[in-house]
Amino acid sequence: MSKNNDELFKNVISHAKEYGFVFQSSEIYDGLSAVYDYGQNGSELKNNIKTYWWKSMVQMHENIVGIDAAIFMHPTTWKASGHVDGFNDPMIDNKDSKKRYRADQLLEDKIARYEKDGKTDKAAQLQDSMDEALKTDNLDALRDLIIEHEIACPVSGTRNWTDVRQFNLMFSTKMGAIADESDVIYLRPETAQGIFVNYLNVQKTGRMKIPFGIAQIGKAFRNEVIARQFIMRMREFEQMEMQFFVRPGSEMEWYEYWKETRLKWHKGLGTPEEKYRFHNHTKLAHYANAAVDIEFEFPFGFKEVEGIHSRTDFDLSQHQKFSGKKIQYFDPEINQNYVPYVIETSIGLDRMFLLTLINAYEEQDLSDGDKKDSRVVLKLHPCLAPVKAAILPLTKKDGLPEKAREIMDRLKFDYNLMYEEKDSIGKRYRRQDAIGTPFCITIDHQSLEDNTVTIRHRDSMEQERVAADQLGSIIGKLVSWENLLSK
Amino acid sequence: MSKNNDELFKNVISHAKEYGFVFQSSEIYDGLSAVYDYGQNGSELKNNIKTYWWKSMVQMHENIVGIDAAIFMHPTTWKASGHVDGFNDPMIDNKDSKKRYRADQLLEDKIARYEKDGKTDKAAQLQDSMDEALKTDNLDALRDLIIEHEIACPVSGTRNWTDVRQFNLMFSTKMGAIADESDVIYLRPETAQGIFVNYLNVQKTGRMKIPFGIAQIGKAFRNEVIARQFIMRMREFEQMEMQFFVRPGSEMEWYEYWKETRLKWHKGLGTPEEKYRFHNHTKLAHYANAAVDIEFEFPFGFKEVEGIHSRTDFDLSQHQKFSGKKIQYFDPEINQNYVPYVIETSIGLDRMFLLTLINAYEEQDLSDGDKKDSRVVLKLHPCLAPVKAAILPLTKKDGLPEKAREIMDRLKFDYNLMYEEKDSIGKRYRRQDAIGTPFCITIDHQSLEDNTVTIRHRDSMEQERVAADQLGSIIGKLVSWENLLSK
Repeated sequence: MSKNNDELFKNVISHAKEYGFVFQSSEIYDGLSAVYDYGQNGSELKNNIKTYWWKSMVQMHENIVGIDAAIFMHPTTWKASGHVDGFNDPMIDNKDSKKRYRADQLLEDKIARYEKDGKTDKAAQLQDSMDEALKTDNLDALRDLIIEHEIACPVSGTRNWTDVRQFNLMFSTKMGAIADESDVIYLRPETAQGIFVNYLNVQKTGRMKIPFGIAQIGKAFRNEVIARQFIMRMREFEQMEMQFFVRPGSEMEWYEYWKETRLKWHKGLGTPEEKYRFHNHTKLAHYANAAVDIEFEFPFGFKEVEGIHSRTDFDLSQHQKFSGKKIQYFDPEINQNYVPYVIETSIGLDRMFLLTLINAYEEQDLSDGDKKDSRVVLKLHPCLAPVKAAILPLTKKDGLPEKAREIMDRLKFDYNLMYEEKDSIGKRYRRQDAIGTPFCITIDHQSLEDNTVTIRHRDSMEQERVAADQLGSIIGKLVSWENLLSK
Repeated sequence: MSKNNDELFKNVISHAKEYGFVFQSSEIYDGLSAVYDYGQNGSELKNNIKTYWWKSMVQMHENIVGIDAAIFMHPTTWKASGHVDGFNDPMIDNKDSKKRYRADQLLEDKIARYEKDGKTDKAAQLQDSMDEALKTDNLDALRDLIIEHEIACPVSGTRNWTDVRQFNLMFSTKMGAIADESDVIYLRPETAQGIFVNYLNVQKTGRMKIPFGIAQIGKAFRNEVIARQFIMRMREFEQMEMQFFVRPGSEMEWYEYWKETRLKWHKGLGTPEEKYRFHNHTKLAHYANAAVDIEFEFPFGFKEVEGIHSRTDFDLSQHQKFSGKKIQYFDPEINQNYVPYVIETSIGLDRMFLLTLINAYEEQDLSDGDKKDSRVVLKLHPCLAPVKAAILPLTKKDGLPEKAREIMDRLKFDYNLMYEEKDSIGKRYRRQDAIGTPFCITIDHQSLEDNTVTIRHRDSMEQERVAADQLGSIIGKLVSWENLLSK
């Protein structure tokens, strides 16, 4: 991360806190590691991102419906999905400090140090060996690399290591009070399985014909050892997933369709094209026959925001096997029964939130000769802005607040508004800029005479005088979801 | 529950499943006790209820903002709130069957049996003794009552009981991989504390002036021993809570305000007034100085849907004490610092969902002389209906589907629609009735000639012919949120 990018990221994080977008969870108790809360503006922005996704996927696609499955699921679900046995990180303990580390993370830190020291050959060689060990789940080989490259515990400074062991990333808890019926259950580590176990219910009760999709927005939990980069990697996070069920053999066609459709969704928000790229997976998960990430250029480099995966019939077949229930679709067009294939689109809501914030954040120097001035503005797409318009009487007297409220009372049913009468109008404009409000509506003395107001545009800072009666349609045009959905 | 009500409730539950509103969680694995998933129509209905609440509370109140706090919170939160020490159920084990029961539940079952047998005196006496024991947390007294009234284990049939012990209702899990830093954390048993620990952040960054409120919708978890009545009492559930911060001494005034305002919200949906009542708490929780439930008449009797509680300064004071951070508000009007008092409105989203479904559900006999006919219709408020309009070409040919899609393409940006061309038009109408769709729009041969369609109204089943160009405004008028918010 370059100096500038590092600073930019820090500024975005502090802006997010200062303006009520994101707070550290339980901050008054000095926080909870890798867990965050969304504040008064953050919760609105997050809801608007959800709405954009839900409308694009469910409302705009005749053959996609939504569900909302519980976080608690029958534990066999996670045996079938492979999470009980395979959802692990390789961990190693230092015997002197008693500290535990992710083995691959220790190695990656070493690789970074080699690179910093100009030992690029050594870095590349270690990278290859590590990749090979991870690919083959060879825990001994990982340990050997740690020994061979003389990696020491950052706390004790010694190289007195245990074996490498697998550590499951699922959070577990116990349900039920009756001692002998107490069962270990897991907090779901992904929302996808909630869709798969409901496939039969939705297909039948919704009379769905293949191809069709099931969409879901919801929380998932992973006991990440290394959680960092603000809300990029959290222990509690939210996913927006859609599983699209198709005829076997047609999956690559739909894979391509969803790749393009999802990238279009991102670009619809006006993000510069060069900030996005596809990254094809070369190492495929055991359930996939094709997988690609949509990556965004964060200040700390290109990182995954969304994944599109061709999951074959792996999940449904596993649930068929573990539940003993037949999960098949009769396709009248080809007169055949089959277990459907699946294309998944899976986007991290919190990452999308961070992307949106970073992309919107702009520090502007507005100095005019000797007159120093600057502002921070969030150039959010108007559909996503937490507040659509601020209603600002120029002064607190002369009947201006009353006139302002009269206007507000007409608009408030349709738009989330904010009323502010304190401080100078310039200060109030800047506060709205900082939370991304597209319109500031100022009520002045002329408003009392001819029922006009000034409307200030966030990005251009230009003002125009319009009839108060036109405000509804002016705001409506810019914040209409159709602007995004028709793209 | 009378025979009729019992049957009605059963019919609603099976309708909820058959039409994709509510499924048992992980049903293919024979379900998970007291956990449910929302299906394709249920998730839309649930989202619409959330939207109605959020708009009513946040958008319509200048001095209320929303947040979205994490489920995971710092464990000290629950020491401060009293949940670690006091959020318990009294449990007793039978030594022969090894089964565990809630002591008060065993006693309540006995009371019910006394009543059934006409022993009303005995029932009343036991009720009084049990209430007294619960009020004073006298576990020995509970056990004595079980012995005295000769209550036997339903499984073993013996009266060989252990002592009564407290069982905490919070789900716990462990966070972090580093063994010696692993900490027990809880799944929040209520959303309210997420608001209290964020009080300072929101008040300061949002420049909020008392009185003001913070609203939140989110999941909470309780390891209920007795979970029953469908989605009435679940182990994973969702709350819509608002904490309103006021000047000490003004709390009773605001308590009355929120009682009335919240009841108005419920009545806004058109539910018959006599189905609602207030129930004042006589036994107050340790943090409250006044509390009332808004109860709805479910088929199994009047039950709490929402609570309005005057929580005093208990929570903020406790967090001040446990965190060591000063949680005070400087009130410029009276020139004083104080810990704000709190009025809480807390509604169970899943209960509200059930209420809505039960209230909308109607079995109608449409027989005409010898011609037997009937339908099930969900008379949902149009704003809450999962699908706003169904687009139905009369036949699959003659260009009617194309004409239908042309109409759909104009309306789909604004409304959640459903397209159906299969089966007779009568059958399709009934399917839409069953999920509560307010409008069925039929495209017939005349539509091709004069660009008119028929629009069928769900409740009256009456049809009228209208210009296709008017559909947007006809639907828009009925489903506009302003209909609900302006009440």
